[in-house]
Amino acid sequence: MYRKEIKVLDCTVRDGGLMNNWQFSDDFVRSVYNACVEAGVDYMEIGYLSSEKAFDRNVVGPWKFCKDEDLRRIVGDNNTSLKLSAMADIGRIDLEDIPMASESLLDMIRVACYVHQVDKAIELAHHCMDKGYEVSINLMAVSTVNERDLDEALADIAKSRVPIFYAVDSYGSMYNETVQHLVRKYKAAMPGKEIGIHAHNNMQLAMANTITAIQEGCTYLDATLLGLGRGAGNCHLEILVAFLKNPKYRLLPLLQTIQDHIHPLQKDIDWGYHIPYLVTGALNEHPRSAMKWMDSERKNDFVAFMKEMHDYQ
Amino acid sequence: MYRKEIKVLDCTVRDGGLMNNWQFSDDFVRSVYNACVEAGVDYMEIGYLSSEKAFDRNVVGPWKFCKDEDLRRIVGDNNTSLKLSAMADIGRIDLEDIPMASESLLDMIRVACYVHQVDKAIELAHHCMDKGYEVSINLMAVSTVNERDLDEALADIAKSRVPIFYAVDSYGSMYNETVQHLVRKYKAAMPGKEIGIHAHNNMQLAMANTITAIQEGCTYLDATLLGLGRGAGNCHLEILVAFLKNPKYRLLPLLQTIQDHIHPLQKDIDWGYHIPYLVTGALNEHPRSAMKWMDSERKNDFVAFMKEMHDYQ
Repeated sequence: MYRKEIKVLDCTVRDGGLMNNWQFSDDFVRSVYNACVEAGVDYMEIGYLSSEKAFDRNVVGPWKFCKDEDLRRIVGDNNTSLKLSAMADIGRIDLEDIPMASESLLDMIRVACYVHQVDKAIELAHHCMDKGYEVSINLMAVSTVNERDLDEALADIAKSRVPIFYAVDSYGSMYNETVQHLVRKYKAAMPGKEIGIHAHNNMQLAMANTITAIQEGCTYLDATLLGLGRGAGNCHLEILVAFLKNPKYRLLPLLQTIQDHIHPLQKDIDWGYHIPYLVTGALNEHPRSAMKWMDSERKNDFVAFMKEMHDYQ
Repeated sequence: MYRKEIKVLDCTVRDGGLMNNWQFSDDFVRSVYNACVEAGVDYMEIGYLSSEKAFDRNVVGPWKFCKDEDLRRIVGDNNTSLKLSAMADIGRIDLEDIPMASESLLDMIRVACYVHQVDKAIELAHHCMDKGYEVSINLMAVSTVNERDLDEALADIAKSRVPIFYAVDSYGSMYNETVQHLVRKYKAAMPGKEIGIHAHNNMQLAMANTITAIQEGCTYLDATLLGLGRGAGNCHLEILVAFLKNPKYRLLPLLQTIQDHIHPLQKDIDWGYHIPYLVTGALNEHPRSAMKWMDSERKNDFVAFMKEMHDYQ
């Protein structure tokens, strides 16, 4: 019943850190790591790979950098079946700051880019591959990219050596037919590449869109514990694991960490489905205005937010 | 882009009342009613139609009975385009307690039944039709009905005069392929009937399953404001209206009532996605054990609940 080729990637710390500047305690990160190991999850994306000069350590926590000494404090030598990933943003990491994979605890680097950065993303991705990493390119905000630009980007990636390419619903504005169309387009334009899915939950469709992506042949599935992530959050890892029939995955370790660390965090961080996130998702807008609203005293004035965002009634 | 034949049915008060014994203030119910009118929603299901002797008015609020005088206090003569519906459970309403439609503010009666009650449901439905009501039959808990029993029930309904039949995911255990299979089966077995969808959100799939049902030709769509409903709640009315492209629907009045009445209720009632509801949904179990757990002091001990429910890890 299950597909052996499916890989589940937890990005709780990486995407969730967008809500708290990666200010997670070591206990928190270690609990997520242990849960992923025990649950049989394939990859854990533990943060971003950034150069020290790009961000201030007084503002952002260690998972914005993913230095080896920080990783080692959590995972030791990582003598487990769980692979570790970090995301790299174009312009935030210098090539010389990326260690050889043989000297790093990281197994995979995922290069995030906007459509105008695809050539730079391919360059960075090739560099990482040459250093021994597994590599993907994650094209963000594709719901706002016009057809001409997207076709050109896909053609460039098709010609590259990069083996994995992600369908990313950054704004949580896609529904099943959008995902179906996009994944079919990706597969047709880039034969032989593996396709991944990264969904956001603005319209409570992240889990369903991930199922649609599976049905269309996606093999890399992003998810986070209790959906922890930017704005409305992500596809829930615990729902995904409950859905997948692969006997290697186990739900109980995930529930333990949700119970101990993730659920209590809801007191401090307002990720998940909230009306302002629905509004930006339905309008195919970046969630930043909704996040700003949710941080203000007017967070529960949904009508004012919608009026501010758009004149549709 | 939109389908004219689609009807949206709000069941906020009826399904939400399962969480608080229909103890809503008149202000609350009036706000939902006004929102539905202003938003262009087609039906509002305001409660259950029950005989007085079936329930104690000291325990349940007026929307368990939907007496004309209670309705009139909220809706006046209901000189609007919004139609009013009530749900009738088999055995909870005596035929003689149902007024003629011409003497009632109700436009529609939806007969809820389990598979062994289908013959009684058809009898009650015909009775209501003969009294002048629009009528549907809503077969609950179909995810636990075996194929032989379901085929027989569908054949009986196909032969009846009842024009509308609902696909009901009582346990929130269905995903898109389940809904697709079920709706196709219903349409094939009952040509000429309209099909409705009533989804629950245990696996955060209620909205997606409603979209799938639309794609399969369902025309009656149930939803509630902010998903208020039993356990994990229902398909969110505000997401559905944001999704539908029919220009007659308006989102802003729904957000106003969510802001004023529904969102504040989250302090008192724990509907919506919570891990215990995921567990019962994934196991295709009635949510009652999860609701009981959520009412206990151990509500956030997710691991203990899952261990109690099942030995799968």
